[in-house]
Amino acid sequence: MSAYDVLAIGNAIVDIIARCEDDFLVAHGIHKGAMNLVDAERAELLYSHMGPAIEASGGSASNTAAGLASFGGRAAYFGKVSNDHLGNIFAHDIRAQGVAFDTSPLTGTPPTARSMIFVTPDGERSMNTYLGACVELGPEDVEASKASSAKVTYFEGYLWDPPRAKEAIRMTAKLAHAAGREVSMTLSDPFCVDRYRDEFLELMRSGTVDIVFANEHELKSLYQTADFDTALNAIRADCKLAAVTRSENGSLIVRNSETVEIKAVEIDELVDTTGAGDLYAAGFLFGYTSGKNLETCGKLGSLAAGIVIQQIGPRPQADLRLAAEQAGLL
Amino acid sequence: MSAYDVLAIGNAIVDIIARCEDDFLVAHGIHKGAMNLVDAERAELLYSHMGPAIEASGGSASNTAAGLASFGGRAAYFGKVSNDHLGNIFAHDIRAQGVAFDTSPLTGTPPTARSMIFVTPDGERSMNTYLGACVELGPEDVEASKASSAKVTYFEGYLWDPPRAKEAIRMTAKLAHAAGREVSMTLSDPFCVDRYRDEFLELMRSGTVDIVFANEHELKSLYQTADFDTALNAIRADCKLAAVTRSENGSLIVRNSETVEIKAVEIDELVDTTGAGDLYAAGFLFGYTSGKNLETCGKLGSLAAGIVIQQIGPRPQADLRLAAEQAGLL
Repeated sequence: MSAYDVLAIGNAIVDIIARCEDDFLVAHGIHKGAMNLVDAERAELLYSHMGPAIEASGGSASNTAAGLASFGGRAAYFGKVSNDHLGNIFAHDIRAQGVAFDTSPLTGTPPTARSMIFVTPDGERSMNTYLGACVELGPEDVEASKASSAKVTYFEGYLWDPPRAKEAIRMTAKLAHAAGREVSMTLSDPFCVDRYRDEFLELMRSGTVDIVFANEHELKSLYQTADFDTALNAIRADCKLAAVTRSENGSLIVRNSETVEIKAVEIDELVDTTGAGDLYAAGFLFGYTSGKNLETCGKLGSLAAGIVIQQIGPRPQADLRLAAEQAGLL
Repeated sequence: MSAYDVLAIGNAIVDIIARCEDDFLVAHGIHKGAMNLVDAERAELLYSHMGPAIEASGGSASNTAAGLASFGGRAAYFGKVSNDHLGNIFAHDIRAQGVAFDTSPLTGTPPTARSMIFVTPDGERSMNTYLGACVELGPEDVEASKASSAKVTYFEGYLWDPPRAKEAIRMTAKLAHAAGREVSMTLSDPFCVDRYRDEFLELMRSGTVDIVFANEHELKSLYQTADFDTALNAIRADCKLAAVTRSENGSLIVRNSETVEIKAVEIDELVDTTGAGDLYAAGFLFGYTSGKNLETCGKLGSLAAGIVIQQIGPRPQADLRLAAEQAGLL
């Protein structure tokens, strides 16, 4: 029996979100659309130049866990916060969404991670992440019972940035596979792929990872090619199942020789792309762990992504189960 | 010469905002639409039952100061935070909006004030405010140069809840009047009016306050009447100028025998009423301190209120100056 549909593992982050013009990104050397890692000093500097902001719990895999719970799925999460105010906010929000979150917080420093997210007028988000307490996530944080009782374990490629999280991932993957479960990852970010390309490919080719989520840019970065079809055929061979998102061009799901094409949902206004990929994974994994066919999994992913990009902040304020029912997907 | 258009004084609060159903308010004894004062213990309890939330700087008069600055006005603010994380957020956001904010923060406890705001499906907000550091605001926090150099000093009726803020108000009003400036207040909340009715009337009748902002419910509470016209004629006699908001029915501005009627702006969707009155005051005071006629002042107020109720959170993400220009009001 599975106690959880999805166990998500990631960097536990509170987002600080403000709008800015494109000039601001250029002036401050922020790579647009990417996750920029910053140290404490640069975090202070950027905050001092940031406009009025709002705070909201974020973190890629935690957004996915929250999204899955909003669909009605059973989610658990591993991630490290500190016992400070932002850590309390993070823990409150994920638990209030119904996600099992029991990773013990750090006492004292470093503080809970935060990401300063600048949203430009085109709706694109550019992240500046200070990892803080996340650097302390390690194998001692693996709760074996959760690792072996979740249908799918899902982790973010971003976890290769902190030093010991990868050990936690490899341990969790072993426990999961020993219990007959599947393991899934998101490639997270094209620059993250560039930093850890060989290790990500090894995770896939060794069978440590069964299911891969990526966007078009990450996929091309993984295989160092500008040709999308080349990259798509390469990942087809490297993992059991892959879902590749292409923004307004929808997504493609590949499994061996099978290809399923999903249209993007129509939206009224693109407000903030933060969380789009995370919520696609949430919808997909909710469908997948509910036994839906790949087309429905993809449509659930598109639905959730389409909702989150029409609001500020990375976790939908709307009830995703209700939205899925209204869309005729459940 | 005036260094500031508006000096705002209020409870410095960070909002914690979540959606809930009406049943939740009933189950937790929260008075819908009102500002409910809570102690630290009840704040903890309510937070533990609150759904996933977002955090945003709030506080009635501080929202007005931020709105005025967004219009391009010159604003200053007095309000008390603690030197903790929420205090840093509050100070960052108001300064990043261009408001002069130099009140010295408390060291240590009580912590920065927070208000748990529950937004029901009809868009109405119900606030649960823990005053924290705000109880320490007193006459020692009055910066005389700002009090005497702002065209209008604006304060919230809510300041009668903490013990010594009213002393700061009376001192500021004296300095302002001695410099030939005007003093303005918002009645804040019908229950707040009920708590301090006699004192509020004394402020008006003694000439301590020249300009009053109120909504219909607060006005009726002030004069303990169910008849709107009776209340409107009463306030006409009690202060030099009053602006009374009536939600979707617009607003009325009265000055002696003069009455100006302003329509509410049409909106696409009512999302969250938080900040509606605060932003009306921001628009009105921006117009007033720019020398606009009362009709334009009211239209600027309606414009800002209409913008803030179509988003989550109490301070507009949009640039109000741009919005006013597009509406042909500047």
